[in-house]
This record gives sequence, structure tokens and C-alpha cells, in this order.
Amino acid sequence: MRDFRLKHLPLDTMREHVIVIHERAVQNGNLGLHPLDRARVFGIDSQTGKQREITGVLNVCGDDLIEPDEIGLSEEAFRDLGLPHGAAVGASLAVAPASVDLVRSKLRGKRLRREDFDAILTDVAARRYSRVELSMFVLGCAFEKFDLSELTDFTSAMIATGEQLRFGSSIVADKHCIGGVPGNRTTMIVVPILAELGLKIPKTSSRAITSPAGTGDTMAVLADVALSAERLYRVVEEVGGCIAWGGALELAPADDILITVERPMEIDTEAQMVASILAKKKTAGATHVLIDIPVGSSAKVKTPEFAEHLSGLFMAVGERIGLRLEIATTRALGPVGYGIGPRLEALDVLSVLRREPGAPADLREKSLMLAGRLLEMTGVEPPSRGYEAARRTLDSGAALKRFDRIVDAQGRREMPPEAVWRRTLAAGQAGRIAQIDCWQISRVAKRAGAPSNASAGVKLYKNVGDSVTQGEPIFEIHAESDSQLQAALEYSNSVRRLVRYDEGP
Amino acid sequence: MRDFRLKHLPLDTMREHVIVIHERAVQNGNLGLHPLDRARVFGIDSQTGKQREITGVLNVCGDDLIEPDEIGLSEEAFRDLGLPHGAAVGASLAVAPASVDLVRSKLRGKRLRREDFDAILTDVAARRYSRVELSMFVLGCAFEKFDLSELTDFTSAMIATGEQLRFGSSIVADKHCIGGVPGNRTTMIVVPILAELGLKIPKTSSRAITSPAGTGDTMAVLADVALSAERLYRVVEEVGGCIAWGGALELAPADDILITVERPMEIDTEAQMVASILAKKKTAGATHVLIDIPVGSSAKVKTPEFAEHLSGLFMAVGERIGLRLEIATTRALGPVGYGIGPRLEALDVLSVLRREPGAPADLREKSLMLAGRLLEMTGVEPPSRGYEAARRTLDSGAALKRFDRIVDAQGRREMPPEAVWRRTLAAGQAGRIAQIDCWQISRVAKRAGAPSNASAGVKLYKNVGDSVTQGEPIFEIHAESDSQLQAALEYSNSVRRLVRYDEGP
Repeated sequence: MRDFRLKHLPLDTMREHVIVIHERAVQNGNLGLHPLDRARVFGIDSQTGKQREITGVLNVCGDDLIEPDEIGLSEEAFRDLGLPHGAAVGASLAVAPASVDLVRSKLRGKRLRREDFDAILTDVAARRYSRVELSMFVLGCAFEKFDLSELTDFTSAMIATGEQLRFGSSIVADKHCIGGVPGNRTTMIVVPILAELGLKIPKTSSRAITSPAGTGDTMAVLADVALSAERLYRVVEEVGGCIAWGGALELAPADDILITVERPMEIDTEAQMVASILAKKKTAGATHVLIDIPVGSSAKVKTPEFAEHLSGLFMAVGERIGLRLEIATTRALGPVGYGIGPRLEALDVLSVLRREPGAPADLREKSLMLAGRLLEMTGVEPPSRGYEAARRTLDSGAALKRFDRIVDAQGRREMPPEAVWRRTLAAGQAGRIAQIDCWQISRVAKRAGAPSNASAGVKLYKNVGDSVTQGEPIFEIHAESDSQLQAALEYSNSVRRLVRYDEGP
Repeated sequence: MRDFRLKHLPLDTMREHVIVIHERAVQNGNLGLHPLDRARVFGIDSQTGKQREITGVLNVCGDDLIEPDEIGLSEEAFRDLGLPHGAAVGASLAVAPASVDLVRSKLRGKRLRREDFDAILTDVAARRYSRVELSMFVLGCAFEKFDLSELTDFTSAMIATGEQLRFGSSIVADKHCIGGVPGNRTTMIVVPILAELGLKIPKTSSRAITSPAGTGDTMAVLADVALSAERLYRVVEEVGGCIAWGGALELAPADDILITVERPMEIDTEAQMVASILAKKKTAGATHVLIDIPVGSSAKVKTPEFAEHLSGLFMAVGERIGLRLEIATTRALGPVGYGIGPRLEALDVLSVLRREPGAPADLREKSLMLAGRLLEMTGVEPPSRGYEAARRTLDSGAALKRFDRIVDAQGRREMPPEAVWRRTLAAGQAGRIAQIDCWQISRVAKRAGAPSNASAGVKLYKNVGDSVTQGEPIFEIHAESDSQLQAALEYSNSVRRLVRYDEGP
């Protein structure tokens, strides 16, 4: 039944397998295939003699694209099938993986067990879930609260889908911020400080999920972040730490695929957050992890009570999967630093490391506090001495030197130029800035093109606590195209209370 | 900024707009476009001088498919843009429609108002929602229960997205079964009876959403069902009734798009069900509607209490949108009739209409009961005389003749031959059949290829109430390919309690 020739289609569909078949082949054959059906493509690997197969979503096409005796596969589908162009392949209708029934039962309120999560996440990691099915699972996780043992099972199953890094060291430090506060790039300051003080800190960060920049995006402005496991081991061996993009390592591949659906949803779910973060830390080889939970009315976590609840979940699941955890709850009235978006945030980080006069004090202080806590929890410094040790390392210039070594070890990149399309916005009134809405200012930066366009984003002239006169420039939008600048302006003008002022005396 | 030539790509992506752009165009331009971004394509209609635009999901490709100065559009996207091949078009990044924020607020528990639903469904109908965003809305409807006024607003907004048929008659009858019971093709018997007795009954049915055949699929085996509004008016004028496919009429286009996501989810939500059914009835011009709610442990509605609750919702919303409704609650211990799947169900319908000796008595009785109720509620017959009038019309052969006239008026089709791949399954024990699981037997038929393959499905030899000896044939799977037959067999063998027997004495 291998009646087709395989064709590689140069179609980038981002983690979805697309199978293209000619409409005449569908009509003539009795394949029973229809557009958007799930189909299976299979063939024999002539080297090993073994059968290889993938499943994907079917697109039916007319002439031009492929011949009636060809089956076309998109980039990832072709790569995952692993057969050469022109190979003899067959196709048949594929049914939804059986584990989708488990997702449906979750949506109806059923508790899932460890083996259920294993079945679901194995199918997810093998790209057997359609986008709609992935959405069902993500929203199921959002709506049907997990109990603690369920959440632990989910996390453990997430860990089991991927590889695990091993550094042969009894202490491997790591940190993570749950996000929601733009500009919060403490990692790029904490890592060189800790590495300089002798800790092993192989930090793997994600790219932005719902934000205008993740640490992965910001570091990518300065250095190569898509390190293979081999290169990452070498970098950490050489300079004690790294700031790499986790996605290149396939540490928790199921999580990476779930994120492709979470991103357009702009929804972060509690279970997903805890499982995703802890699974990534565990598979990255960490032993001691500090989790930063910013709390503020416009941040991801809005109340101290919810921060408390979330801390409890992290601590409990962390213990069950063998991670030593601490939580730092921080206050968030607005962005950290002045830049929002990869390039502008990188400039803030460099400014702090270089101890420039105008460097953002909030980013510096927060980074030193987090570095201090990690130094204490790993026993490098005695209690209440961590902050001071971190400060000395930064102020001596040693942290900057270490950062430069990390950048060189990962592969230095040239910083992109300032975005061409810019517009300054002025304060609508005089007063002291009480809050800047994290969600809304992030959206301005995203509309402007961040993080896809590294130079796009928002540059704050003023931050929380600063006083302004009416008409004084308050922030500047940076975009790489006029249409994106307009989209950001339009959004910025449409929202109220992006900036809140203290009531006058 | 219209730097591209429009290219029509023969790619059938089923109600999703796909925009294909060359990777070099992405790299060179400052479009800020990335795979799976939402993009906007625009150009001037040279006939009217007006700007036309569509939004869609971006796919990035290399050579072969299109040139760097071309933008390719999938079938529906090309049609909806309405510009000729080669037209000068521009592209830019498009942001998610603002109404997606309303969906997110619903997911967080907020009540939606009429204008919110209008905004959401207008964007849905214009294909501005991605599949992930559609999933969010459908699951939001499933999880966050609507109150009555919200449900009425949702239904009214659904009605407002499309055209409304008008028959210039004070009584236009209609019926609808909420589904979940395979083989329940009463419509094709009720319509000719009512039309013969002088009622106007322009029945528009859906194709299967989560079932192995909808009335639209089954009627399509015998006649053309994709009638334009003009043709439908003519058929109803000529023969008093029709059995058409609603999807061709764009009666509630937002609903048709939501269904593309509901289908793979295999989830029917309460709000979606009520709004979808009543919106379709209202826009199809009905004044008097009978809703059939089958109740059974394996049907869509499992308990009399839930049937009661659903009836209340239908009646209340029906009244608010000006429909005269009645509900028929029926008992479902298994499929109705012997056939499951388009062709096999059509054979059952013909057998009842032709009064053949082996015709399924349950299908006949249920159809007569429903026809009787409709005759009474429309005042054609006095109370308690409807059933008898319906029976006479069927037994005299008048209903068959009327059905033939309807088929001819819509356009007769040749019945497809019996499926080539068949396998008989035997009873595992002796006994009287107490129940056949509606959901599981439907899945067997779907695995076999129904409804996409019209001849595929399940043919029952025995139904609920029949006695069998061990090893006696109980049903036969029909498929159009060996792989589908195997898939159906595999599923059938994997489930327990597909057939339940009464305990012996």
C-alpha cells in the first residue's frame, strides 16, 4: 500500500505536522481521507529496515503544489518521519489517540492518574495531538483544579517525556520567575554573580510565552542561546554558568508543545505553571531552586493570598520530586527597569552590570536580593550575608567580566540597532507615578512587535515612584515597521489607567 | 505597500484562512511576520475602487511553492478576499481581534452581554478567530454556565450573524432532534407526511457533528442537499417541504465555524446546543418547532432530570426569540432502526416509507409520534388525532410518493453501492438485548469511515429487545477500505459492554 512518493514541502508550521495530498488521490483511492482529517504516513527506512511513521493534519490540494502520486510533508513532519525525498510511502486515516478520551474525562471532572498523564503527554510529545485537542487539555488543566498528588503526577509525567541534564555536582543552583512583570531580567545579573562565587548555575530559560520578552529572547540579543546539550555542558564547565534557551534542549518536549497553544490563548494556568516550571528545573539538572513570585494588581499573581497558595503548591510538588525550593515573593507596581522588549531589556542588564550612573536601581536591587538568597540557601554564604557578597561581586566589576565570558562561551552576537519607527508618549497629567499596568504596557510592547522583533518594545522614561509634569515624555514605543507602531499606539490610546498617579495633596 | 502579487493556492483548509509567504520576503521586509502569526492581506478591488482584506494564519515557505514576491492564499481565503490572481496586494501583521479579550473574561467567569456576543460572533463569522481561539470560546461556553438572559443574548447574536429565510406563511413547521442516538432518521419520514397534509416544512439539517451521520449526510445519499436559498424556496413552493443541508445556506455562519472545532472535540455543550439549534430554526424561517430529546444512559442526555432542565432552557429561550416550541422526550436504550451511517440509514428510511415487511418498527413508530405531535401543535389536526392522521398518510403510500417528489425536486442521486469491506460480529452470549451503547456503536461506525464515506457504518442484525443465541450474528461493520475496517474492529473489540444483555431468569 506504499503507492506514494514522499515530497518535502518547505512549509514551516511550527510544531504541527501537516500532510498534503492531491485531491485526485483522495477521490481515486479509497483512503477515506478528507481535509483536516488526521492521517498517518508510513514507509520503510532502507537503512534499518524498520517502519517509520508520523501522524498529522491533512490538507488537500489541487495541481501546482504536488502530483497525484506524491505526499507532501511540512518541515517538521518530514524531519520526524526521517525518510528521504522520493521514498515510497503509504497513507491512511488515523484516529485520534486514545488518550484524548482521558482529556475529555478530565473536562468532565474526573481525576487523572500518573499513567493517564504519561499516556497524554507521550502522545503530545509525539505531535499526535491536533491544535484543538491541545487546547482541550490546556483548558482542562485551567478549569478542573488538580489536587496535590494529581499535580505531582502531571509534573513527573512532564519530566518523563524528555531528557535530563546531569552536571555531576551535588549543588546545581537555578532560579525562575513566574513572570507577569515586564523588564524583570534579573537572571542575566544573578547568573554571573553566582558563577563568579563558585556556584554551578546552568540556567535554561524559555522564550516569551505571553510576555513581550523572556530571558531567552533578551539573552539572544547578545549571545547564541540555542545550545545543544553538549555545548551547554562545555560552557558550564568552562565558565560555571550559562543563560541558554531551554527549547533547544528538548528538556520537557510535551511542555514546549503545550506552550504553542498557551501562547495565543494568553492564559497561564496554575497547574500548567507549577508543572511546567518544576519539570523544566528538574530536567535541567537543578538541585536548589529559588522561585520569584511578583505580586501586584496588574501582575500575574494579584494578591498575597494567591501568592501564598501558589508558594504552597510549588513547595509541596518540589519536595515530592526531590528539589530544594525557596520562594521569594516580590512586590510589583510596574515594570522592572526601563526597557521592555529584548533589545531594550538587554541594555538595562548591561547598564546594571557596567554600573552606569543611570542604571535602573530596581533591577539592580532585585537581582542582588535574589542572588543573595541563592548564595544562602546553597550554603555558599552564611545566613544574612548573601546580599553583601553579591553586591561586592557586582560592584567590583567581577560580575561584568564573568558575564562577558559567558557571552563569549555561548557565542557573542552583535546587538541589533535601535528600531527605526519610534513615538514618544507624554504624561496626561502631573503627579507621582503610583502604578504602571504590567499587562497593558506588555501589550503595547507586543503590539509593537516584541519579542519577535528584537528591537521592538517600550522604553520607559519614568517608572513607578517618579514625578512628572503634564506633557513630559513618559515612554517611547519602538517598532520595526510603521504598521506595528500604529497598532501599538492604537492599543495604548485605547486603554485607560495604563499609568496611575498618586492623588495630589 | 502593495508589493506582492496574489496567488491562488489550491489548498483546502476547511474554514480556516491560510496565508503563505516566502521566507525571503519575511527576512528582507520589515513585516515582522513569523509562522503561525495572524496576518492581514489587503488590496484594492479595481471594479469598485474599494479596499478588500482578509486575515488568516501565516505559513512561511521556501522555494517551489511560491516566489518571494507572491502571497499565496488557500481556497477560502482567496475566495473571501475576492481579488483576481496576480492582483497587487500588501500584507501586515494582524493582532487578535479585540473580542478575544471578551472570551478570556468569560473563561474567568464574567457574564457576557448581547453586544459582547455580537462582537465575538461577528469576528468568528468573518473567520478572524484562529482554531485555538475558537476552542477557547467553545470550552468557555462549556464550562462557564450561561444564565437565561445570557443564553438568549448568545442565541440572538448567533441569529444576527446570518441571513434569515422567509416563507410568507403564518405557520412554518420544523423539528429537530438534539442527537446522540444513531440511526434516528425520523426527519426523512416526518417531512413527507406533514407536507402531504398541507404543512409547510422547509427542513434544514446539519451534517454530523459528533455522530456517524446527520440527516444532511443521510439525505445526501438520495438527493442533492446543498440547496441555495433560491432553490430551497422553489422546492418548498413546489412540494411543500424539503430536507436540505443548512450549511449551504449560511443561516448562522458563526455556528458553522464553531462546529468545525466542536467536531474534533466530540463535546456538546449545553449553551452551544440550545443556541445553535434555536438560531438555526429561527433563521430557517420556522414558527412551530418540535424538539426531540432522547434520554438514555449512553445517549447525549443521560437522565430525565437533565432532559427536564434542557427542556426548560429550550422553552424559555424559544419564547424570548419568538418561536412556538414543544419538547418530545423519548427513551433511548440503543440505536433507532438497523442502519448506522448514511447509506445504511437511508435504506431504513426507504424501508419504512415503502412499508416493507422487515422495516424497523421503532423508526416507524417514533416518526409517526413526532409527526402527530407536530400536526396537533400546528392545529392541522385536533388534539390526540395527530398520530392517526400521520399513520394513514404513511400506510396509504402517500408519504412515499411525497418523499419521491421531494427527492426529485431537490435532485435525485444514485444510491452508492454496498461497502466492499465488511465483517460480521457475533453475540458473545445468549440472552435478550437490554441495551446497545449509543456512543460506542457510533464510534465503531465512525472508525469505519462514516459519515465521510457514505457506505460505511454498522448494520445491526439485532436491536434492543431481540433475543440472540451465542455466536449468532449481531451486527456487521461496513467500510470502504481495509484499514478502516480494521480500525473499527479494533475499537469494537476494545470496548466492554457495547451490548448489554438482560440477566437470565
